[in-house]
Amino acid sequence: MGLVVQKYGGSSVADAEGIKRVAKRIVEAKKNGHQVVVVVSAMGDTTDELIDLAEQVSPMPAGREFDMLLTAGERISMALLAMAIKNLGHAAQSFTGSQAGVITDAVHGKARIIDVTPGRIQQSVDSGNIAIVAGFQGVSQDSKDITTLGRGGSDTTAVALAAALNAEVCEIYTDVDGVFTADPRVVKKARKIDWISFEDMLELAASGSKVLLHRCVEYARRYNIPIHVRSSFSGLRGTWVSNEPQGDQPMEQAIISGVAHDTSEAKVTVVGVPDKPGEAATIFRAISDAEINIDMIVQNVSAASTGLTDISFTLPKTEGRKAIEALEKTKARVGFDSLRYDDQIAKISLVGAGMKTNPGVTATFFEALSNAGVNIELISTSEIRISVVTRADDVNEAVRAVHSAFGLDSESDEAVVYGGTGR
Amino acid sequence: MGLVVQKYGGSSVADAEGIKRVAKRIVEAKKNGHQVVVVVSAMGDTTDELIDLAEQVSPMPAGREFDMLLTAGERISMALLAMAIKNLGHAAQSFTGSQAGVITDAVHGKARIIDVTPGRIQQSVDSGNIAIVAGFQGVSQDSKDITTLGRGGSDTTAVALAAALNAEVCEIYTDVDGVFTADPRVVKKARKIDWISFEDMLELAASGSKVLLHRCVEYARRYNIPIHVRSSFSGLRGTWVSNEPQGDQPMEQAIISGVAHDTSEAKVTVVGVPDKPGEAATIFRAISDAEINIDMIVQNVSAASTGLTDISFTLPKTEGRKAIEALEKTKARVGFDSLRYDDQIAKISLVGAGMKTNPGVTATFFEALSNAGVNIELISTSEIRISVVTRADDVNEAVRAVHSAFGLDSESDEAVVYGGTGR
Repeated sequence: MGLVVQKYGGSSVADAEGIKRVAKRIVEAKKNGHQVVVVVSAMGDTTDELIDLAEQVSPMPAGREFDMLLTAGERISMALLAMAIKNLGHAAQSFTGSQAGVITDAVHGKARIIDVTPGRIQQSVDSGNIAIVAGFQGVSQDSKDITTLGRGGSDTTAVALAAALNAEVCEIYTDVDGVFTADPRVVKKARKIDWISFEDMLELAASGSKVLLHRCVEYARRYNIPIHVRSSFSGLRGTWVSNEPQGDQPMEQAIISGVAHDTSEAKVTVVGVPDKPGEAATIFRAISDAEINIDMIVQNVSAASTGLTDISFTLPKTEGRKAIEALEKTKARVGFDSLRYDDQIAKISLVGAGMKTNPGVTATFFEALSNAGVNIELISTSEIRISVVTRADDVNEAVRAVHSAFGLDSESDEAVVYGGTGR
Repeated sequence: MGLVVQKYGGSSVADAEGIKRVAKRIVEAKKNGHQVVVVVSAMGDTTDELIDLAEQVSPMPAGREFDMLLTAGERISMALLAMAIKNLGHAAQSFTGSQAGVITDAVHGKARIIDVTPGRIQQSVDSGNIAIVAGFQGVSQDSKDITTLGRGGSDTTAVALAAALNAEVCEIYTDVDGVFTADPRVVKKARKIDWISFEDMLELAASGSKVLLHRCVEYARRYNIPIHVRSSFSGLRGTWVSNEPQGDQPMEQAIISGVAHDTSEAKVTVVGVPDKPGEAATIFRAISDAEINIDMIVQNVSAASTGLTDISFTLPKTEGRKAIEALEKTKARVGFDSLRYDDQIAKISLVGAGMKTNPGVTATFFEALSNAGVNIELISTSEIRISVVTRADDVNEAVRAVHSAFGLDSESDEAVVYGGTGR
């Protein structure tokens, strides 16, 4: 039996009862003969409460101090969890990100992990302890300041520690049973996926699936650490994310892994762009200089009569205003007609490595949408994904239609609780 | 202008408003040309809330984890304070006890400071920052575990940093105007003391005055760091505690510094102890082995007829049960008759270096108590202190009578807010 890393999100340790429940589960793994390292997020609403306090004292809190503040959240949950485990008669020690050797760059609020030096953690588990590590936090390499890893940071901590410790598996405990073929809040017949490849999981994460964030899956793929996403509320087997199916899992991958949707994006259309070299470059350089990440880009063929074309792209709604301002400044240089901004859109994506060798997939996808009366505004594809943009109002209908068309519906309605994974 | 260390207790930073108020005061000191290092406690009730959480997950939380938990409190207040200062346009950085170089032994919950290596703090203030340091916490020398300093820990952190940084003064901000000649809740005419020597302050602290703890004063005396105790709610000058009066303070020390009282103790009487060598030693070895700190000890002369004597001592009420149990076990060996336990007592102490050379002090003290109809049960004296034990019911009357008899009453009633200093 080797070492396992378990990660518990904020909703799993929301209160004393939750902490005691999680402690029991951790002790089970220890009793089964594993060395156990646990990564834990801040309790339930702690982070929001701390952010609220910060806003009361300063409208623009400095990054260094904001990180110092937020990391108090995991300090509380990890110490309580260690106490709860000791109370069950097992040795446990808690460690901050810094103590656990999570070395990052100095970009406060969204630091990247540079290195993990888990000497103290290894020593602690070798001495028979269960090691509890604060998720979401690290220490900057040069300044030795406390940093936070940003969204999904605790998952990334868990995977990074699993890699550094040569763990057998990184178990991500959350409030859902695993990764589903679609969002179960939208598709009642969504099925839990038993196994999914890193590649398909990356596409799902990029397409709006919130169970695992892209960053954490990317890290796991690079170091080939199998992830097991499962519920902290049930004993059920969840979803394995890995290069190869594990144990008694199906050896052949399904053609389609799942359907993801995302309503957090908006669409910007630059209307009447002169169809000559360099115009698109000018536009997207302006967007890039404003540090805005964009998603899909579509350029229509230009109308022969006018020599003008339209360029559309999607981006997070939160960046909409900044993008419009940046583009207005290029208007004189580019000479476009106007800008259109539309935040009533949804993106629906079909993901599956199997589609590479199944030419019918695209046709089936579009037919399903058409039969459901859903109009397609933009299309973009990768080797293992097709994404379309539709009206936001159509999103549920569209997801259900596609899910059914690819035979993903389960026999029975599944009863699941679905929510975000916190940080 | 040199470096000043300021310490703010939990009641001064109880909420966002308090933090902003304290930030303004800190910035004033910086504007006046000082380098400023601030030590801060946890906000208001934070510590109690964390203790409550710990009790919910474990009846006997492990020391290492309990310290990890509690230190989250200062992490929150120090980060918020740094943000509030930056919001006023001044550079500030917060540091944990560990980052500030507060090195301790490994006794969790009441660690002693072994060394202070304030390199990062010095560097931070030399770069123009106001440095905010978490009070009450450190890091153990060998295991590198997070420790807490126990009661009055933040004051001790402040004095220890002041010593290590060669500060001009350690300012302890609290919710009272300074050290008073008696507890103003009991004696309306108590006066604020402008200056008091380390020695007198040590005796007052040992006798029940709660404004400064013995440990912090002892540290300040050893390194000769002047302490200025003052209110964080007013701009008034408070009480200076130092070897020599400062500036325009009175050069000659008053005969009597003040009257302290303490109702937290109980009295144990061992009745009928054979008056022969070794009996007292057996009794107090038993108490010492139980790790109980005792205060006054009084042995009456033995009655010639019986050859038996009584031995009384006082100790914290919280230790009463443990003491009785420890003594019961020695009964056969010592051969005493019985044990009496009395927790309805009060200790009243008169403190002042001037009493060494004023033989009338003792007589005036006893006369004042006698005139007030207060019966004396035990007496103990040092060079600069007389303490008596009375009935708990008599304590207010006794303190007022003594305060008046030594001419300590102010001309007018002072309006003060009085409370504990937190940790």
